[in-house]
Amino acid sequence: MPSNELHYMSAWELSGLIRNREVSPVDVVEACLARIEATEPTLNSFITLIPEQARAAARRAEQEIGRGNYRGPLHGIPVGLKDLFHTAGVRTTSGTRIYDTFIPAEDCTVATKFSEAGAILLGKLNMHPLAFGPTGENADYGHMHNPWNPERITGGSSGGSGSATAAGQCTITMGSDTGGSVRIPAALCGITGLKPTYGRVSRAGLTPLSWCLDHPGPMVRTVEDAALTMNVIAGPDPRDHVTVNVPVPDYTAALTGDVRGLRIGVVREFFEEPIDPQVADLVQGAISVLGELGAEIVEVSLPLFEYAQPISNAILSAEATAAHRDILLSDGDKLYPQVRDRLEEGLFITASEYLRAQQARQVFCQQVAGLLQNVDLLAGPVEPVTAPVILERRIDIGGESIPAVPLLTKYTRVYNITGSPAISVPCGFADDGLPAALHLAGRNFDEHTVIRAAYAYQQATDWHTRRPPL
Amino acid sequence: MPSNELHYMSAWELSGLIRNREVSPVDVVEACLARIEATEPTLNSFITLIPEQARAAARRAEQEIGRGNYRGPLHGIPVGLKDLFHTAGVRTTSGTRIYDTFIPAEDCTVATKFSEAGAILLGKLNMHPLAFGPTGENADYGHMHNPWNPERITGGSSGGSGSATAAGQCTITMGSDTGGSVRIPAALCGITGLKPTYGRVSRAGLTPLSWCLDHPGPMVRTVEDAALTMNVIAGPDPRDHVTVNVPVPDYTAALTGDVRGLRIGVVREFFEEPIDPQVADLVQGAISVLGELGAEIVEVSLPLFEYAQPISNAILSAEATAAHRDILLSDGDKLYPQVRDRLEEGLFITASEYLRAQQARQVFCQQVAGLLQNVDLLAGPVEPVTAPVILERRIDIGGESIPAVPLLTKYTRVYNITGSPAISVPCGFADDGLPAALHLAGRNFDEHTVIRAAYAYQQATDWHTRRPPL
Repeated sequence: MPSNELHYMSAWELSGLIRNREVSPVDVVEACLARIEATEPTLNSFITLIPEQARAAARRAEQEIGRGNYRGPLHGIPVGLKDLFHTAGVRTTSGTRIYDTFIPAEDCTVATKFSEAGAILLGKLNMHPLAFGPTGENADYGHMHNPWNPERITGGSSGGSGSATAAGQCTITMGSDTGGSVRIPAALCGITGLKPTYGRVSRAGLTPLSWCLDHPGPMVRTVEDAALTMNVIAGPDPRDHVTVNVPVPDYTAALTGDVRGLRIGVVREFFEEPIDPQVADLVQGAISVLGELGAEIVEVSLPLFEYAQPISNAILSAEATAAHRDILLSDGDKLYPQVRDRLEEGLFITASEYLRAQQARQVFCQQVAGLLQNVDLLAGPVEPVTAPVILERRIDIGGESIPAVPLLTKYTRVYNITGSPAISVPCGFADDGLPAALHLAGRNFDEHTVIRAAYAYQQATDWHTRRPPL
Repeated sequence: MPSNELHYMSAWELSGLIRNREVSPVDVVEACLARIEATEPTLNSFITLIPEQARAAARRAEQEIGRGNYRGPLHGIPVGLKDLFHTAGVRTTSGTRIYDTFIPAEDCTVATKFSEAGAILLGKLNMHPLAFGPTGENADYGHMHNPWNPERITGGSSGGSGSATAAGQCTITMGSDTGGSVRIPAALCGITGLKPTYGRVSRAGLTPLSWCLDHPGPMVRTVEDAALTMNVIAGPDPRDHVTVNVPVPDYTAALTGDVRGLRIGVVREFFEEPIDPQVADLVQGAISVLGELGAEIVEVSLPLFEYAQPISNAILSAEATAAHRDILLSDGDKLYPQVRDRLEEGLFITASEYLRAQQARQVFCQQVAGLLQNVDLLAGPVEPVTAPVILERRIDIGGESIPAVPLLTKYTRVYNITGSPAISVPCGFADDGLPAALHLAGRNFDEHTVIRAAYAYQQATDWHTRRPPL
C-alpha cells in the first residue's frame, strides 16, 4: 500500500493496518497533512490547523499501540471537527470573527469521545457563519470550494467538513445538521453524511443554532466509516438533556450487504418539485439498484411535504435568534450580512407564530411516522441540483429561477423536523462532473436500517470510490 | 352507616361497602345528587349536571357488581370533571359561552379510564374561563363560591372541582393545573389536590392552556383517594406524546403511614415572602408533625425562586395565546375581560422572549433537581393566605397590598415549571375559619413518596375530616 494513498483510505481499512502495526498513525497523519498542504490553497477547508499537536498525538498513538494498548478502530485516525464543536485549548470560531479569539476551556462531548477512542484531531473546519446557511460562504475566513470544481460551493453549513473529507484531508469529519448541514455538503461533495436521530448524539459543547433541530453527524467517505464513527459518538450524555437512553447497537452489524425484505418508500412529491432531470434520473437509478438487490420499492405520498420549509423556517429562525440575540444586538455589524439578515428576521417572529409552527410540526411528524409504519425507509434525493456556483443566489431549473436557500434545503429539512436518522450517499455524476446523492431516512433511533441499506447500495456501486481531480 | 353521610365518605371507604354489596352505587349517586340539590344554589360548582345519565350508570354498576363483575375501587364512585375534560355527548364549555354548545364526539383519555373503571360521571364542573386564572371567577356561568364561606373564592381555575369535593357533591373530581389550578382550589377549599408529574397522566382530549405546563390531577378529600385515582388515570397514552412510558406503581402501596428515613427540605425563601403569619404557622406546624413522625427536616435554599413567576408567565401567556388565538381574534369580545386581556398580552411576546424563558426554565429546573438530590421532598405553603373575597383584585398582607394573581400562584408555579409531582393537603384553619394547606413536592415520577408523606401527615391529624358548615 503506497503511503501516498493513506489519506484516501477509510478508517475501516486503516484500522486493520494500524492495529497490526503495518501502518503507523504517524504516517497516516503525515499523509493527511501533506494532502492538506497540497489542496488547502484551493479548498480552504480549515479555519484552524493544529499540525504539531496532531503529530504529537500520532506519536503517542503509535507508542500506545506499540505497547499493545490498541483502543479500537478510530485509534490513530485523523479527524476534523466543524468549527462549532468546542475544543479545549483550540480556538472555536463558529465561523465568525466575532469569536475569532474564543478558546474553550472544555471539549465538547463528541471531541471527548473521539479523544478517548484515540482519534487524532487535525484541526477545525470552515463553515457557514454560525452554521446558518446551506451554501458554505464565509467572508471572514474565506469561502469554501468544492473539490470536484473549485468554482462551485461545497454546500453548507458544514462545507469545510465536506471538502476536507472528499479531498482526503481528513479520514473522518464531523458536521452539524439543522436544516441539512451534514447532508447538503455530503451530497454536493460526493461523500457520505449521516444525520443521526435527534437525541442520539450529544450536542453538549456545540454552539447551538436551533436546539430542537440541531443534530451532529459524521461526514465520511464510506458507510463503514459512518458505522465506526457512530459506535464511538452515539449514546446518552448527562450534559445534553435531549439525549435519550435508548440502547446503542454495534452499527457495524448493519454492514451485511443484504437488503432483502426491506420495504423502501419513494416519496412521490419529492419528484413533483422542480428537480434537475439528470439528478432525478441518478436518484431513481439508485433506488432501482436497491430494488434489484432485493428491497421492495413502493411509492408513498407525503402531502404535507410543502410545509416542511415554512415549519422549519419559523422554528429555526426563532431559535437561532434566541441563541444569538446578544451578539446580534451588540455585534450585528460584524456578522456576515446574510446571516445577520436571517437573525434579524427572527426578532419579529412572535411566540404565537413559533408555537403554531411547533404544533404544525407535530402533525407533520405524524404523517411521516404513518408512512414509516408501512415502510422501513423513505428514499429520495438529497439535492435537486448539483453544486451551484459560489455566491449564486438563484438557481435555474428548467427555465425556472429559484432562490438558492429554500432550493438546497427542501428535501433535507423534512428529517430535521421529524428527527429521523437520514443519510446522504453518492449515487453518480451529472454531465457537469459533479456528484448527485441518494437520501435514505428511517424510523427514529433506527440508524441500523439506514446504514444497512446505504452500505448495500455502496457495495453494489463504486461512486464512493471516485476521487476529485485535485 | 346512615345513608345521609354517603356523600362524604371517601372512595376508599365506599369501595369496600360497594364491593361487598353493603351499599349500592345507586344510593351513593342519590346521596350526591341530593347533596348537590341542597348546596348548588350556594356553591355553583357545576356548569352541566347529568343526573339521569348518572342514575342509569349507577343502576348498571349495581347490576354488574350484583353479577360479580366488580371492576375495582372506583366502580360505582361518583366523579365530576372540570369542564375542559372532553366528554362524548356531554357539552364541554371550557368555562366560556363561546363553547356553550360544544358537544365532543369523543371522551378524553381520563374520562375513558374513569369509565372503564366503572366510575359514574355526575357532571361537568365550573372553572375560570379557559382555565386562565387562579381565583375561580366566571361571568358566563356564575362565580364559584367557597363552601367554608360563600363570600370567598374557591380558588381556580378548577374552582368547581374544589367546591364540589369539599362539599360532598362528588367523591372524586378532576382538575387541571398549569400554574396551580389543582392545588390552589384544593388549598383554599380544604381538600387534597395532587398535580402528578408532567407526562404521568394523559392530557389527550383536554382543552389546552399551556402544553408544556398543563397537568391534569385528582381533587379528593383524602390521600387514599388520590392514590386510588392515580392507579386508574396514570400511564402512557399514544394520544398524548408527552406521556412517558415510566412504570406505574400501585400507589396504595405508599399508604404506610411511615415517613421514617425521609428527608424533607423546607425552602427558606418560601417564608421570606409576604405570607399571612397564621398560615405560615400552620404550615410550619404541619412540617413539624412530619418531623415528629420521623422524617428528617432540613432547611434548603432555592435562590431562583423569585424567577418562577416571570418564567411561568412568559411561557404560559405565549402558549395560551397560541392555543386560543383563533377565538381571541374572532370572538375576543365574548371572552371574560380579564382572560381576554391576558391572552392579548401573549400576542406581544416574541419567540425570542419565549425561548429565553424556556432557557431560564432549564436553569431553574437544574436548581430544583439539585435540591432533590439531597432531599426526598420539598415542603412549604400552597398559598400565603386563606381564600380572599370574590373579585378582590389586591390582597393585604401585613399592610402591603399585593395583586391577587401573582400572590395566589407564587408557590404553585414552581412545580409547573419543573413538572414535579406536588400535593396540597389541608393543615389547619385560620381564625377566619378558612383552611390552610401544606405543599409537598417530590422528584419527577416519584408520586409514591409524595403520597407516602401526605398520607402519614393525614393519618396523624384530622384536618381532612372537617366538613364545611353548609
